[in-house]
Amino acid sequence: MDLTTVLTPALILDRGKLEKNCQAMLARCKQHGVRLRPHMKTLKSIDAARIAMDPVHPAVAVATLNEAEYFASHDIADIQYAVCIAPDKLDRAAGVLRRAGSFSFFVDSPAVAQRVVTYARKNAVRFHVWIEVDSGEHRTGLAPCDPDLIATARVLSTPDVTLRGLATHGGQSYKCRDTECASQVAEAERAALLAAAKSLRSHGTDVHALSAGSTPTAVHGRSFDGLTELRPGVYMAGDSFQESLGTVAMDRIAVTVLATVISHNVARNHIVIDAGGLALSKDRSTASCSKNRGYGLVLDIHGHPSFGELLIHDVHQEHGELLISDPDLFEQLPIGSKLRIVPNHVCMTAAMYSNYLVVEGGTKILATWPRTNGWT
Amino acid sequence: MDLTTVLTPALILDRGKLEKNCQAMLARCKQHGVRLRPHMKTLKSIDAARIAMDPVHPAVAVATLNEAEYFASHDIADIQYAVCIAPDKLDRAAGVLRRAGSFSFFVDSPAVAQRVVTYARKNAVRFHVWIEVDSGEHRTGLAPCDPDLIATARVLSTPDVTLRGLATHGGQSYKCRDTECASQVAEAERAALLAAAKSLRSHGTDVHALSAGSTPTAVHGRSFDGLTELRPGVYMAGDSFQESLGTVAMDRIAVTVLATVISHNVARNHIVIDAGGLALSKDRSTASCSKNRGYGLVLDIHGHPSFGELLIHDVHQEHGELLISDPDLFEQLPIGSKLRIVPNHVCMTAAMYSNYLVVEGGTKILATWPRTNGWT
Repeated sequence: MDLTTVLTPALILDRGKLEKNCQAMLARCKQHGVRLRPHMKTLKSIDAARIAMDPVHPAVAVATLNEAEYFASHDIADIQYAVCIAPDKLDRAAGVLRRAGSFSFFVDSPAVAQRVVTYARKNAVRFHVWIEVDSGEHRTGLAPCDPDLIATARVLSTPDVTLRGLATHGGQSYKCRDTECASQVAEAERAALLAAAKSLRSHGTDVHALSAGSTPTAVHGRSFDGLTELRPGVYMAGDSFQESLGTVAMDRIAVTVLATVISHNVARNHIVIDAGGLALSKDRSTASCSKNRGYGLVLDIHGHPSFGELLIHDVHQEHGELLISDPDLFEQLPIGSKLRIVPNHVCMTAAMYSNYLVVEGGTKILATWPRTNGWT
Repeated sequence: MDLTTVLTPALILDRGKLEKNCQAMLARCKQHGVRLRPHMKTLKSIDAARIAMDPVHPAVAVATLNEAEYFASHDIADIQYAVCIAPDKLDRAAGVLRRAGSFSFFVDSPAVAQRVVTYARKNAVRFHVWIEVDSGEHRTGLAPCDPDLIATARVLSTPDVTLRGLATHGGQSYKCRDTECASQVAEAERAALLAAAKSLRSHGTDVHALSAGSTPTAVHGRSFDGLTELRPGVYMAGDSFQESLGTVAMDRIAVTVLATVISHNVARNHIVIDAGGLALSKDRSTASCSKNRGYGLVLDIHGHPSFGELLIHDVHQEHGELLISDPDLFEQLPIGSKLRIVPNHVCMTAAMYSNYLVVEGGTKILATWPRTNGWT
């Protein structure tokens, strides 16, 4: 099978680029003396996880219990559900724990901590818990100075649960538009975890692990001293938004959408393809970046930027529109021809596909990798 | 099963509201003497199609060949793939036609028409084809005055294919912000089809059917004289954007997302839920409407607007944030409590879910309806 004959839209993964991205992040973590816990919320694929994980300390982070179940079914033992658990998900979490012995999740309040402990006692299940710390994103997590941090740790100081440590996500790094800003967010993650750990230790709580991370902070952070692990995710694939943050080079972006030209409108200088808002996502995160990439940047079928900054300028549910300035493109991209599109935000784009067509440089399909999706 | 105990995020469909929306559109079409071909790109469910279709003339429109195969597998014979076909999809289209005897698709160029005819001759398969007419959206389709319209019809004037008729979609109706505008787009659809049909007839081509439609034009059009069918889709479910266009009332919106509160940030007046950019979509179409609904409008678990204009003001991949002005909401929506969210654009939101939990008014789950997704 080859990309030239496959039905579109389809999701393409370049394995060579994925491997290089994974090797670079592993090397970076080793150099800084922290473990790598790749976040699989982007690729949601066991094949990708096997390339991304440190073989000495295999572990992943996930964003849904569906992902947790999927990786547990593939015998990954150390799975961190990096989200504050809803109390009525404890039954499902207990199910994951039976399969994955080091499965863990987040908590950010004494009230939920108490629900976790009560459930653990009643059902004789020993949950692994991280207290989430807010390092400036202000989404979830407790600020290091919040009295609820001590109170939550106190509730969890029981043999019924294992307090794994403290975790944070400096998601404000996605608002950065330069590397210095991302470096500062990395330092904010580190400072918040160290301050929270110090506070807990002064109240008699052992804190073993400190988990931080996002791709921008993992790539641009200067020091991770005192942290035990990083959990970036999107670095494996990359996308236009990550390129704008300087975390991935254009020639290392590993995931693209394959599409087919279905109509020409010569009078209006546009070309229509069979990939629209569902196939590409409606993420417009690059709108605020130095390079506004519309709904995606157009590459040729080989994944090369042969058309300059040719963009998808509008999408409908199943149609994408390319506004062209060079009429020669009607000849270069006739109806029926194929092209590839760099997504703005690969986590959103990939979520619509049930598998990856795996290539390496060329257009030959070397494998099909399934991915898990949804919540059930 | 009941919504109070189901795992979230989940997609909820209120069957009573769906039935009312479908009955209203069927009645409207009958009143105007046109057939209804419900477009299933939104709900992608055979159970919904059975409620939406006219039992006397069962037929649907779809936006992907995956949907076409799905409805063919459920014995719907008259399926219109309302997209210009890519030539390399003809094999797959022929497969659908073997199962669904009146399966049809769009063409908007003499070149593709020729590919269709050549394939049909070579493979002894008689495709059903609509020529797509551009009625002002300028996405795909030929303007009524475009010489390629006659040329395309001439290529298709062969016993090897069946020319079903002319079809258009006045998608510019989505740029309307009042009903008068949508009425005018409906008239543009009608005028374009009648002009194109007149032109073809004057060149000796029989034109049997004229297919138009979008929900705004189907709801707000004043006359459909001369048309044979309408193919609106999103009217079955409704959403905030459609409410703003006056095509559906808030109490008739049939599809919502069920979510659970997972964190409180009292200092910052926000509540975090387990439905984010994937569960709600990143569609921001209401941003340009009179009521900017953020990433969604929050209802109570019964689907009632108990919290006024409480919105999802920001999303991350798996987190949604509600900015609250009334601190009492922390008590009304404690961690673990459930709420429902009206999507901005239900076609995008529903696409992330593999099924609907069906209710009728209350929170009791009466059925689970599968839906098809993706392209393979």
